[in-house]
Amino acid sequence: MAPAPPDSRVDVLIVGAGPAGLMAATWMSRCGLKTRIVDKRNTKVFAGQADGLQCRTLEILDSFDFGHRAWREANHMLEICLWNPDENGQIRRSDRIPDTIPGISRFQQVVLHQGRIERFFLDSLKEHGGIQVERGVMPEALELEDADPHDREAYPVKVTLRHLTEEQATPATINGTAKNGTVQSGLFRSNLTPDDTEDLLNAAKGNPRAGLTEIVRAKYLIGCDGAHSWVRRQLGFVMEGEQTDYIWGVLDIIPITDFPDIRMRCAIHSADAGSVMVIPRENKLVRLYIQLTRTEKGGGQHDRSKITPDMILKSAQKIMAPYKIDYEYCDWWTAYQIGQRVGSSFSKNERIFLAGDAVHTHSPKAGQGMNISMQDTYNLGWKIANVVKGVADPAILKTYQSERRRIAQDLIAFDHRFSRLFSGRPAKDVMDEEGISMQEFKEAFEKGNMFASGIAVDYGTSLIVAKPGDAASEGDGSDVSAANSKKPQVVGKQSLSSVIKLGMRMPSFQVLSQADARPWQFQELLKSNGRWRLVVFAGDVKQATQKARVQALGEALAKPDSFLHRYTPADAPIDSVIEVLTIHCSPRREVELLDDFHEIFHPFRKEVGWDYWKVFVDDDSYHEGHGQAYKNYDVDPVRGCMVVLRPDQYVSWIGELDDMADLERFFDGFMLARR
Amino acid sequence: MAPAPPDSRVDVLIVGAGPAGLMAATWMSRCGLKTRIVDKRNTKVFAGQADGLQCRTLEILDSFDFGHRAWREANHMLEICLWNPDENGQIRRSDRIPDTIPGISRFQQVVLHQGRIERFFLDSLKEHGGIQVERGVMPEALELEDADPHDREAYPVKVTLRHLTEEQATPATINGTAKNGTVQSGLFRSNLTPDDTEDLLNAAKGNPRAGLTEIVRAKYLIGCDGAHSWVRRQLGFVMEGEQTDYIWGVLDIIPITDFPDIRMRCAIHSADAGSVMVIPRENKLVRLYIQLTRTEKGGGQHDRSKITPDMILKSAQKIMAPYKIDYEYCDWWTAYQIGQRVGSSFSKNERIFLAGDAVHTHSPKAGQGMNISMQDTYNLGWKIANVVKGVADPAILKTYQSERRRIAQDLIAFDHRFSRLFSGRPAKDVMDEEGISMQEFKEAFEKGNMFASGIAVDYGTSLIVAKPGDAASEGDGSDVSAANSKKPQVVGKQSLSSVIKLGMRMPSFQVLSQADARPWQFQELLKSNGRWRLVVFAGDVKQATQKARVQALGEALAKPDSFLHRYTPADAPIDSVIEVLTIHCSPRREVELLDDFHEIFHPFRKEVGWDYWKVFVDDDSYHEGHGQAYKNYDVDPVRGCMVVLRPDQYVSWIGELDDMADLERFFDGFMLARR
Repeated sequence: MAPAPPDSRVDVLIVGAGPAGLMAATWMSRCGLKTRIVDKRNTKVFAGQADGLQCRTLEILDSFDFGHRAWREANHMLEICLWNPDENGQIRRSDRIPDTIPGISRFQQVVLHQGRIERFFLDSLKEHGGIQVERGVMPEALELEDADPHDREAYPVKVTLRHLTEEQATPATINGTAKNGTVQSGLFRSNLTPDDTEDLLNAAKGNPRAGLTEIVRAKYLIGCDGAHSWVRRQLGFVMEGEQTDYIWGVLDIIPITDFPDIRMRCAIHSADAGSVMVIPRENKLVRLYIQLTRTEKGGGQHDRSKITPDMILKSAQKIMAPYKIDYEYCDWWTAYQIGQRVGSSFSKNERIFLAGDAVHTHSPKAGQGMNISMQDTYNLGWKIANVVKGVADPAILKTYQSERRRIAQDLIAFDHRFSRLFSGRPAKDVMDEEGISMQEFKEAFEKGNMFASGIAVDYGTSLIVAKPGDAASEGDGSDVSAANSKKPQVVGKQSLSSVIKLGMRMPSFQVLSQADARPWQFQELLKSNGRWRLVVFAGDVKQATQKARVQALGEALAKPDSFLHRYTPADAPIDSVIEVLTIHCSPRREVELLDDFHEIFHPFRKEVGWDYWKVFVDDDSYHEGHGQAYKNYDVDPVRGCMVVLRPDQYVSWIGELDDMADLERFFDGFMLARR
Repeated sequence: MAPAPPDSRVDVLIVGAGPAGLMAATWMSRCGLKTRIVDKRNTKVFAGQADGLQCRTLEILDSFDFGHRAWREANHMLEICLWNPDENGQIRRSDRIPDTIPGISRFQQVVLHQGRIERFFLDSLKEHGGIQVERGVMPEALELEDADPHDREAYPVKVTLRHLTEEQATPATINGTAKNGTVQSGLFRSNLTPDDTEDLLNAAKGNPRAGLTEIVRAKYLIGCDGAHSWVRRQLGFVMEGEQTDYIWGVLDIIPITDFPDIRMRCAIHSADAGSVMVIPRENKLVRLYIQLTRTEKGGGQHDRSKITPDMILKSAQKIMAPYKIDYEYCDWWTAYQIGQRVGSSFSKNERIFLAGDAVHTHSPKAGQGMNISMQDTYNLGWKIANVVKGVADPAILKTYQSERRRIAQDLIAFDHRFSRLFSGRPAKDVMDEEGISMQEFKEAFEKGNMFASGIAVDYGTSLIVAKPGDAASEGDGSDVSAANSKKPQVVGKQSLSSVIKLGMRMPSFQVLSQADARPWQFQELLKSNGRWRLVVFAGDVKQATQKARVQALGEALAKPDSFLHRYTPADAPIDSVIEVLTIHCSPRREVELLDDFHEIFHPFRKEVGWDYWKVFVDDDSYHEGHGQAYKNYDVDPVRGCMVVLRPDQYVSWIGELDDMADLERFFDGFMLARR
């Protein structure tokens, strides 16, 4: 009998190693938390499944240093073509619109299959020491004891894990619905997946503890175990929402077709054969979402076992006629029924959390699922890490549900509207009230694009977002106002910028490093490492008055009893809890980093000298033009301003350089003194 | 006794696994040649050594799909600061110039240590099947038999390889000159090198054949075995050139300093204490090149064994005074004597080739060494592959020496001039004839930047570069005119573009894919896979006359007896020897790929349908502006032109769309019919 693991206590136990679970594990690895992540399946996904990546998701992956891998391998979608019936009922291209609204992000929406995204997470976990997905392991009992939220040594979550035998952990077919005769996986094997071999070998080796159970005690548990979430069922939470009778089929094929826009994202509404959405993918693949039934309700129960790839293809051929479409190679296929549901609660006592498909399900066509799921744990991970490390009060954990359940509700509303517009029959003319107006569809599509980018996320007021308004109504109803309600709520000065918006993610424009003139997208500097950031827009430091203000700020920050020192452990570098980044807008060549800026803006350490990577300038570059950061951020180029960013790049607070008292009060609302 | 390898015959044997050898192996892996690569050392380099990467080198690495890894990890150098003595003899910043001339490449010069570059090559070899560096293996005998150059089954090179024991293969110290007391390699261990572990483990396992010898027969041998090249000595070739008495020290340190430009590349000339070059590097490191002796000749033999890091630092401190410079961490250090030498010959019978340090040595300050070495085998690799695969006549192999020995000669001349300007004492005034004029130095530096970018390379006329002039005088003197000298030499029409220059690498501008509107830098489409390319600038295909010309070209190319078909094996895809890429400049939305372009421009295959990745357009993009490719390439936007690119992206030929006869004659000069 194999021995139990030496220590079964962890800071965080994650159940489920899909995108949401891997995102959570990634935060923990970057923040140095003791973590285990288990998954009952013994391999990760190899084809099909979710594939759309929002702009915001790419920004997030980039903050962990692997966004470029997705960006390089993915298929980039630039244009959406709308195809509608003409007066003779034949489909015609009626419109072209940009897939991603120009200017909202430095990335555009792309498509890459989930298996590759998971691979990037796994590689990144490997590079950053230690956390390994334990496959073929599933929970079978869960207990939650009462514990003081402030007790950092409490392990109130007790989970019994079962180590499955190889047979138990292997799904009947890898993708659930794949049909061997059709899916010729050998013929066009992707050249992008050689590094999956190791996974397969590991799985084949089996688990020496197969068949045994063990008990793990954790400070926090995150359930990322999918639509049929075991964790959710243990907590007794329910999924609220509804199901329709619309059934859609999905084919991932290399298309052989004369349809002109097969490499564009297309929404095709036929006159009366249903709709198709075309999603061009990597490796010559195209995904087709194909409508199979035409009624929203009362169509009776459809026999899904009778759905075959051939039947789905025939539907596509009818909808896309007179164009021909066929394939020799099908990578994956499935079928689904449209429904939208949200979990009744996302957390139990802020010790157990649910994320991803475990708390929201909806139709896949808008390419949102994997994104929203990863963004759930992207929101949660740093909060848990901040609490475990004693940086922040556990009260911040309540903002997870208020922020993310609200997003799930918005998503479901969006999907509800969008699905119905997509599944409906196009109106023949303005008198046809049962039909869908194609003009309305186009407008919904355009509006949907902003939502679908992930950039529109706007978190409500709370102890970590200093904006006006009512916390309950801006979130999902939870109370997340400042921890110490005796102090008046701090509110940032939104008037200082119309672009840097409280509650939204920090936009990105180009700035140059003062020390070496290298251009950076400002977002590239905001790595996900658990640190808060104070961004000092220092303005025009060549003006004497402004220079004095910046100097005064530097002196205030450098005082031994400043919040910067109070929140930072005495033996840790001064930038390890809150990093101060400065952007000025005087001409780069007229400013000297060491002479013109107080030391706190470029701290000295005796082993490595000055820090040359904290002060930036809004000036012309040699090769990449001028970022016009002050103009684009809409910040006063003389007086500047200060901005607090959460570790996930959302804007917490904005104020004047002289607003030190407010700034300190904001941090005092949730940060814990360390000395 | 371990058995001999099952088959000791290879297409190519590479001796030496530094950057030149790895570049050669990379070509072979992409072209599918049977290859072995051996190196007598049992580990790759871990610190120090060469570090500068030219723009052109980054373009080349990008053509193998890993340029982005270097680009991301490297330190980017944007600005050069010149520091000279003022009237009081104190150093002052006198000038700032861009490090890379704006506009010459989509990359700028960066710095990253050789070990990482080697790692990228090794990872890429692993991803592309099979070739593994055999470490601890060195040649001990070499024979070259006579063989018909056209005999594709001849293996005239016979090499005896010795498998070293671990002890034999381990250098006394890893970097040769590292001093344990100083090099605190544990303290700041780079977080960029975790994947070297595998290498170390493999080396530790040892070689089961240690101490044994084996015989390998190869079609071609490439000697990339460094300045003391064993292969070169076997061939009896000599290094021609001279040595000076100038001695320089090199320190790789994390500097603790108040020198303001320590993160810029700096050339510091002190009044009379010598010169320092500052090269800021990755991971907070800075490399300092520090002059130790002040005479070019006649200073007597310097005792190099007495040089220590401390002595080098003291020289730097004197030169950089009144600024202070010190360090707690030194990553690597060395010292060298300036000299410039070139090999007398680069090839024996076009069966054995020498590349890299084996045929050129010079001073390291211009950051050229690793670049020129990699570019040697980048030039050679595809030629050998083309010959082995029967694509091209062996006559093309002669162009290796004519092209690369000429580059080496140019490099040596550049380095000679540059080193002396750098090592000389600054002139006190215009009457000081022994001193170096700082104006002259600045001008040399600026001119040097073009050379140092690697973009200025301009190969002479030959059977594969259809430009006017005399092959011998444009190269190193070798005769490389067309193989069949009875046919008149083909000459491209340089007048069709002032930017796409015969003999130079194809510049890059943005174009959009016609099928999906995605923007691409044109160079991104020119992957290094051994294929030649015919770039058809189709002009304005909405104009009837031009459309007819393009259609006529398509029909001519599609004929069963066209050169495209004649050079392509009957069972291979039509783009496998020469790929046709098209760029038109009509509005993207007014053109339909399938209707408006002859099938040869987007070939059909029955398994995968139409090829959507061959036709591009010069039009506005949604997110990246307008590439203005026709304007930037200086190509007539109505009539267009045709350009032939070698597999290494150098321009071979340029002509009108109607110049099919010339085009065919050009290819007939060296390509072999396959059916």
